[in-house]
Amino acid sequence: MPELRKDPITGRWVIIATDRAKRPTDFVREKVQIHGSGFCPFCPGNESKTPPEIHAYRSAGAKDTPGWTLRIVPNKFPALGIEGTLNRQGVGLYDKMNGIGAHEVIIETPEHQLTLATLPVRRVEDMLWAYRDRILDLKKDRRFKYILIFKNHGEAAGASLEHTHSQLIALPVVPKRVREEVDSAKDYYNFKERCIFCDIIRQELEDTVRVTAENQAFITLAPYAPRFPFEMWIVPRVHQSAFEESQKHEFEQLAAMLKDMLMRLDKVLDSPAYNYIIHTSPAPEVSNDYYHWHLEIMPKLTKVAGFEWGTGFYINPTPPEESAKFLREALLPATT
Amino acid sequence: MPELRKDPITGRWVIIATDRAKRPTDFVREKVQIHGSGFCPFCPGNESKTPPEIHAYRSAGAKDTPGWTLRIVPNKFPALGIEGTLNRQGVGLYDKMNGIGAHEVIIETPEHQLTLATLPVRRVEDMLWAYRDRILDLKKDRRFKYILIFKNHGEAAGASLEHTHSQLIALPVVPKRVREEVDSAKDYYNFKERCIFCDIIRQELEDTVRVTAENQAFITLAPYAPRFPFEMWIVPRVHQSAFEESQKHEFEQLAAMLKDMLMRLDKVLDSPAYNYIIHTSPAPEVSNDYYHWHLEIMPKLTKVAGFEWGTGFYINPTPPEESAKFLREALLPATT
Repeated sequence: MPELRKDPITGRWVIIATDRAKRPTDFVREKVQIHGSGFCPFCPGNESKTPPEIHAYRSAGAKDTPGWTLRIVPNKFPALGIEGTLNRQGVGLYDKMNGIGAHEVIIETPEHQLTLATLPVRRVEDMLWAYRDRILDLKKDRRFKYILIFKNHGEAAGASLEHTHSQLIALPVVPKRVREEVDSAKDYYNFKERCIFCDIIRQELEDTVRVTAENQAFITLAPYAPRFPFEMWIVPRVHQSAFEESQKHEFEQLAAMLKDMLMRLDKVLDSPAYNYIIHTSPAPEVSNDYYHWHLEIMPKLTKVAGFEWGTGFYINPTPPEESAKFLREALLPATT
Repeated sequence: MPELRKDPITGRWVIIATDRAKRPTDFVREKVQIHGSGFCPFCPGNESKTPPEIHAYRSAGAKDTPGWTLRIVPNKFPALGIEGTLNRQGVGLYDKMNGIGAHEVIIETPEHQLTLATLPVRRVEDMLWAYRDRILDLKKDRRFKYILIFKNHGEAAGASLEHTHSQLIALPVVPKRVREEVDSAKDYYNFKERCIFCDIIRQELEDTVRVTAENQAFITLAPYAPRFPFEMWIVPRVHQSAFEESQKHEFEQLAAMLKDMLMRLDKVLDSPAYNYIIHTSPAPEVSNDYYHWHLEIMPKLTKVAGFEWGTGFYINPTPPEESAKFLREALLPATT
């Protein structure tokens, strides 16, 4: 008998197939491979092929020349424009406004062949600092209500360039899904006077079956009601409402945890395409007791089809207890 | 400057690219082709390879033998089980219940090579009657709160068998996304004392730019804030809260409209994969003044990536005014 499970934060039900659970090798998918053939606008020497850099970490060289280890540029085909006013208006019964926002690309390394799983952990930490730097800078612009950091890895997950990069989008509204998640956590807090994520961490550390990894500052778990097989959440142990408020030791520990988890996914699922997303508090309510920032990783193993689009109800063929076990038990080589 | 538009029913914002709008030929995708090679469990003669039929329209033959023109069978790999009780329970702070529900397949024709766009319109109408028959039958079971009808056409849209078919899933809860849409329409009704969909139809018929087709009983429009390029909604002109309450002349007109629209999509987008979903009232509130059933068609032209997963905010590269125009102006051959 399949099981219906409810996500305690969003209230979303998912169907967990318990009878005929899919193992890692049951998923048909294309392995993410880096071909490195053809022209790459993110490689050193091609700096003029992107818009001028916003920021870079570099050991040598001038702006928009080689010598960088990490580079941040505006997206060449931005979804939103940075200049102008929102100009909210009605159109009969409809509502619209100008597409104001920022859309940036974080190029995590000059080396085309590397991924977050194969980069030195120090470079992964740099990427986290870059996320923080950009969030803090963009939050000075009061037009922006939410800043989203995400990564599409592999073509199946929506990456259009194979050179590893993350994206940032600053939005003039708090998106509905974010609003729902934050408000639901707030309702829980108002009723219980406890953070729901802190409660989840406590219960998961007792149950242990869905915990995949732990270090001093973070735990990684397969959530109780995951939408997708092998969905993983990295959550700070101690309550913290916003990613950008993390401290040095937290970024070190997060870099290690993220790299480790991506190596495990590569090992267990043979280098899958994936998306990850940082879920954090909206800009106008950055420090609070009710929302707990975290990072959600979703390997791209299944297709979303009519049922999911029609209901927001997901069918997940792999129980999280199984995916956590596979990832926990993966043997990894020693890393840098 | 891109434009942010708000869906008036769900409150979801979308980004509409107005500068660099994508035309039909700009989308990279695989054309849906029917190969017809290999064994097909949905073809006549192979009736024993599916679970025993629930219902069929047939001119000859006994149950589970050839002679049918439409056949309904339980899904061989159901997402939910039909027998048992819900047994709702808590697991610490989590909630779960048994995966009770129905999961059925409607095989729309015995002919492997046909699609809804190439079937005679009379057969498309039969399919609509079959949807209705199954909904009315399943609604007798009080455990089911929502019955979803959907179609995945083409592998990219999640179809695992190429022989044309639709699916039905009966659920023991009203899914969150359905609840949101229905409640939002109810809020509008409570405030305005008018159905929001009736208001949309009135405004769209005045504006005309997003209307793709009309007949006596239905209009097809590109919604004001579509998530996906070439998303289309078929809406009954006269207020009706539930699909299954449609009358004979409405099914005739819907069959003609649906076939026409799928032919236009095939023509303009070169036989794309697509999903369609019937949005209708939950079983316990079938007749009401606030919700207006409709059918949503979403061609599979773009990939959903980190940004959409993180926010529920969609980036749509084709304004609906453009997609409506392309579809409206498509020249079609005369049909049966």
